[in-house]
Amino acid sequence: MKAIARVAVLMGSDSDLPVMEKAEEVLRSFEVGCLSAVASAHRTPQYLRSLIARAERKGVRVFIAGAGGAAHLAGVVASETLLPVIGVPLGSKLSGLDSLLSTVQMPRGIPVATVAIDNAANAALLAVQILSLSDKALAARYEKYRRDLTRSVIAKAKARRSR
Amino acid sequence: MKAIARVAVLMGSDSDLPVMEKAEEVLRSFEVGCLSAVASAHRTPQYLRSLIARAERKGVRVFIAGAGGAAHLAGVVASETLLPVIGVPLGSKLSGLDSLLSTVQMPRGIPVATVAIDNAANAALLAVQILSLSDKALAARYEKYRRDLTRSVIAKAKARRSR
Amino acid sequence: MKAIARVAVLMGSDSDLPVMEKAEEVLRSFEVGCLSAVASAHRTPQYLRSLIARAERKGVRVFIAGAGGAAHLAGVVASETLLPVIGVPLGSKLSGLDSLLSTVQMPRGIPVATVAIDNAANAALLAVQILSLSDKALAARYEKYRRDLTRSVIAKAKARRSR
Amino acid sequence: MKAIARVAVLMGSDSDLPVMEKAEEVLRSFEVGCLSAVASAHRTPQYLRSLIARAERKGVRVFIAGAGGAAHLAGVVASETLLPVIGVPLGSKLSGLDSLLSTVQMPRGIPVATVAIDNAANAALLAVQILSLSDKALAARYEKYRRDLTRSVIAKAKARRSR
Amino acid sequence: MKAIARVAVLMGSDSDLPVMEKAEEVLRSFEVGCLSAVASAHRTPQYLRSLIARAERKGVRVFIAGAGGAAHLAGVVASETLLPVIGVPLGSKLSGLDSLLSTVQMPRGIPVATVAIDNAANAALLAVQILSLSDKALAARYEKYRRDLTRSVIAKAKARRSR
Amino acid sequence: MKAIARVAVLMGSDSDLPVMEKAEEVLRSFEVGCLSAVASAHRTPQYLRSLIARAERKGVRVFIAGAGGAAHLAGVVASETLLPVIGVPLGSKLSGLDSLLSTVQMPRGIPVATVAIDNAANAALLAVQILSLSDKALAARYEKYRRDLTRSVIAKAKARRSR
Amino acid sequence: MKAIARVAVLMGSDSDLPVMEKAEEVLRSFEVGCLSAVASAHRTPQYLRSLIARAERKGVRVFIAGAGGAAHLAGVVASETLLPVIGVPLGSKLSGLDSLLSTVQMPRGIPVATVAIDNAANAALLAVQILSLSDKALAARYEKYRRDLTRSVIAKAKARRSR
Amino acid sequence: MKAIARVAVLMGSDSDLPVMEKAEEVLRSFEVGCLSAVASAHRTPQYLRSLIARAERKGVRVFIAGAGGAAHLAGVVASETLLPVIGVPLGSKLSGLDSLLSTVQMPRGIPVATVAIDNAANAALLAVQILSLSDKALAARYEKYRRDLTRSVIAKAKARRSR
Repeated sequence: MKAIARVAVLMGSDSDLPVMEKAEEVLRSFEVGCLSAVASAHRTPQYLRSLIARAERKGVRVFIAGAGGAAHLAGVVASETLLPVIGVPLGSKLSGLDSLLSTVQMPRGIPVATVAIDNAANAALLAVQILSLSDKALAARYEKYRRDLTRSVIAKAKARRSR
Repeated sequence: MKAIARVAVLMGSDSDLPVMEKAEEVLRSFEVGCLSAVASAHRTPQYLRSLIARAERKGVRVFIAGAGGAAHLAGVVASETLLPVIGVPLGSKLSGLDSLLSTVQMPRGIPVATVAIDNAANAALLAVQILSLSDKALAARYEKYRRDLTRSVIAKAKARRSR
Repeated sequence: MKAIARVAVLMGSDSDLPVMEKAEEVLRSFEVGCLSAVASAHRTPQYLRSLIARAERKGVRVFIAGAGGAAHLAGVVASETLLPVIGVPLGSKLSGLDSLLSTVQMPRGIPVATVAIDNAANAALLAVQILSLSDKALAARYEKYRRDLTRSVIAKAKARRSR
Repeated sequence: MKAIARVAVLMGSDSDLPVMEKAEEVLRSFEVGCLSAVASAHRTPQYLRSLIARAERKGVRVFIAGAGGAAHLAGVVASETLLPVIGVPLGSKLSGLDSLLSTVQMPRGIPVATVAIDNAANAALLAVQILSLSDKALAARYEKYRRDLTRSVIAKAKARRSR
Repeated sequence: MKAIARVAVLMGSDSDLPVMEKAEEVLRSFEVGCLSAVASAHRTPQYLRSLIARAERKGVRVFIAGAGGAAHLAGVVASETLLPVIGVPLGSKLSGLDSLLSTVQMPRGIPVATVAIDNAANAALLAVQILSLSDKALAARYEKYRRDLTRSVIAKAKARRSR
Repeated sequence: MKAIARVAVLMGSDSDLPVMEKAEEVLRSFEVGCLSAVASAHRTPQYLRSLIARAERKGVRVFIAGAGGAAHLAGVVASETLLPVIGVPLGSKLSGLDSLLSTVQMPRGIPVATVAIDNAANAALLAVQILSLSDKALAARYEKYRRDLTRSVIAKAKARRSR
Repeated sequence: MKAIARVAVLMGSDSDLPVMEKAEEVLRSFEVGCLSAVASAHRTPQYLRSLIARAERKGVRVFIAGAGGAAHLAGVVASETLLPVIGVPLGSKLSGLDSLLSTVQMPRGIPVATVAIDNAANAALLAVQILSLSDKALAARYEKYRRDLTRSVIAKAKARRSR
Repeated sequence: MKAIARVAVLMGSDSDLPVMEKAEEVLRSFEVGCLSAVASAHRTPQYLRSLIARAERKGVRVFIAGAGGAAHLAGVVASETLLPVIGVPLGSKLSGLDSLLSTVQMPRGIPVATVAIDNAANAALLAVQILSLSDKALAARYEKYRRDLTRSVIAKAKARRSR
């Protein structure tokens, strides 16, 4: 149900979808409503601003923005909202190094919470951690996720050892 | 009053203090209680874990961790807590490139919200944004901060123009 | 006389002034009117947009934008105007590599004409070349500049040889 | 019609053609006459100079030069003409980082307007922006291009949302 | 026979197995008992610590740890043991540069003996060199290995020459 | 007493002494006899080989080699001995990145145990860890060192907290 | 005829052959006798030295050495001969950046004439240029090669234009 | 005596003199006549060509060219002469990485013999090695230089040991 979206997943181009939909999948698995949209900081600046405003009205509390190259999307979103913004640097001709530096090296005053190159899943998990601070049910689901993550790594490790 | 610390500011070495105390100053200016500690992921792993546990008991909701070189501090903190962790890559012999990559390139499951090299102030502002989601008074202070930031840049710009 | 400014020199912070005023000096030496302003893509996005609009109304034909780190200024200006935008990546903790990549790696549709790190003089010279296409007097001054540049290098070279 | 070419698209080797012909396509779509030629700064320096002179006589107002590796083509063209020169760094064994630095880091006096790695389309768009300053019909076509670009991104975004 | 394992080969994820099993192969060819395990510094920190303790009890004298991205595994192992730790930086989206810097740039007090990117075989050979200091039979096998290595390179070289 | 040197500390040039003597200091503090020598892989290859042979005759069990730029010293030592070789990449015009890559990226068969840029102290500590495997008294001193290291970090941390 | 080899083409591993045989082809096309050999600076140092000595006795005047990763081959050859040594950095996991820096950043006293990554053909052409200084027939062949190179680029360019 | 100059030392700007005059000093110490000149590939292309032609007429057999940033000087010289060209990448805002890549990554057909960043002395020594191939007296002086180099390193090493 989009109506109660708490996270907005934005990306600079629809070619970014295969990477960024990992964020949506993770959010869905945590039952965190999200809206997702393609909006370029450079090609559709005005539309992007209206999207941000609409997202805030719909109840969005955290933004996730993925972009590659001179990746300004997360920074531009951060400059237009007071909410936390998580940046996902996307792979590029320079292996994402340009995307990473363009996303993370923000000036004093306007931070972007940057995660690893192409790691949209971690952006969603960070959003979950942030929302969990004021949502005990979500916090419980996240705690279970981490416990399961640990268990599955150990189970695989043990299965391997007993071969 | 440290008793109600909501943010823990950790750093890998006391030589990191001049950079990391900017985070404390910002938090103080927002009236966000914080505790700060030196704890090395490599030299004092057990002490670090006890610090994290104690911080959580004291009410900390967000961790900030600054380290340089093979900067594992933020990642190790993130592996020991369910709370959001903000990483500050610190300058180094390689200008902080090693610190940045060691902090941001976390594997799926355990994100670190990375800010710009040496930008401890932005780490604190990101913590403020996160805490503001469930603290209206703080949200108001942050809104004022952003308004003032905008105004001061514009004021300086206008002063310059009218020379 | 600002009234007939043909080039706008923008910079992200007043700490960028010592580098960016080289652009103003060069433009002045070519008798090209310019306006210069501090406006941050991130801290004052709305003010920046109003500045761009006002600059266009005042007759600006070319924008020069200098910024460092996650240097979005030139890209944001380019997304808000149809005029040519010249980007100057400014030195940074990473020697300007982040500024360069953030400025030059623009996506299809919105180019930024990027010059060398900290080379605000060249940004101004490029603006002069562009304006010279429809201003014969300026073209003549630029031709003279290049002739003088060549001569002064050769003169110095010869002076040295005859030592 | 080559006779009224306003842009010359030069490239260092015919293996660069698949990338550089994007520039020709864009120029053609804007009805900007262009001539295109292979000419190596290193293998055919004299031929390159004669090409530049002939291009100027034919009415060329802007040069676009694409090259990879130790990419000197744009810089050499810039040293032989007073017209604006746009450089396209081409992909290489080092992902185009060498091409980018060789193209953009020009010394004071001789700028090259550098665009993103392999982004020949943006080089053409920049040429269009420059020529539009003194060609109202072209300016109108460019304005329409930008409007269409914005619309198509938004249309795709909306189509996606209504799925 | 795992019971007398002298080397522990750890890796951060089972996707690292194809690279890291080269270490096991080399150790086996030297008749050096080893145990191998998947254990993530970030996803299973407690399990990793118990693994390290158990490995020490089983007689392990040298640790080999391979990880990619923000590769903290070797550093975390080094912080939990007094034994020598050899780090293998694994290939990544950034070609292993992030893994290399995260592994090698350790702070004073806690070294990690880092080998080349993806070169698990060399990690094993380094372990063999270390263990050879107090095991004459192993030292003899290593000496033979080096002699054979030299011979096989020369044999191939000569075969080629006489073609 | 040089006669029972167990570690040889080699460096490519006497300008490397200020960094490399940290290794000697650490070794001395652990009562590990060492010999130190300047020997360039490139300028004195034959002398270097005779040094290595003499060092082995004197009882050296571990080599430490520090060099900068195209830092071949550690690799050349590793090719001439069967003993473990620890490489220290030294700072350079490229901040030690060239030294690091030249030292660590060794081919299969001939590993170099590389430590952080300029971190000669860690090279010595790694040598101590290696020698401790067959020297209980040294192992005890190293255990004490690590305990003291942990304590001193915690003591400083606590002192700071109680301010 | 190997007997009058004037250039020795060395490579670190037989996997380097597909790249390095380009050097042999170029030398053959200039009728410059060459010998080629696989010899690792690290795995067969003594054999390498005997190869260098034998090559000198056979009349070799220029060495070409290609290697990847921690590419010490050219430097080691340069340290063992008084003749000019040309280094070819070979592609690697780090795209040849490590090979390039390991080859070119030689210390004062022992230069290596480094050519582009994987450009064995240029190494051969440089050898031809060097040998041409005292061989008029070869100089004439090289002059013809350059003339033909220029012509073929221009011919292709003209063919394209007249399409 | 300039009349019998065998090496031409060119540099892109007179600010390069402090580095490049090391080449002249070395050549002088080997009694190799040289001429030195400032000539920019970009600012004085025609003058540069006339300089090259004049140098050849004066008997120059080897060119040395030092430049920084988008360092095209060596490549441009190489495209205008059939003689061997040695490139010296000069330090820059990017520590000389841009200069190095611009100098070394030459395309097939036109090699530049590149030495280490700022290492003008090695450029001169390489020129001496090349000229020595057809000048026995010079070869003898170079052999003595190398012997002395070795001796002085060993003497310093021994002096240190006997302290």
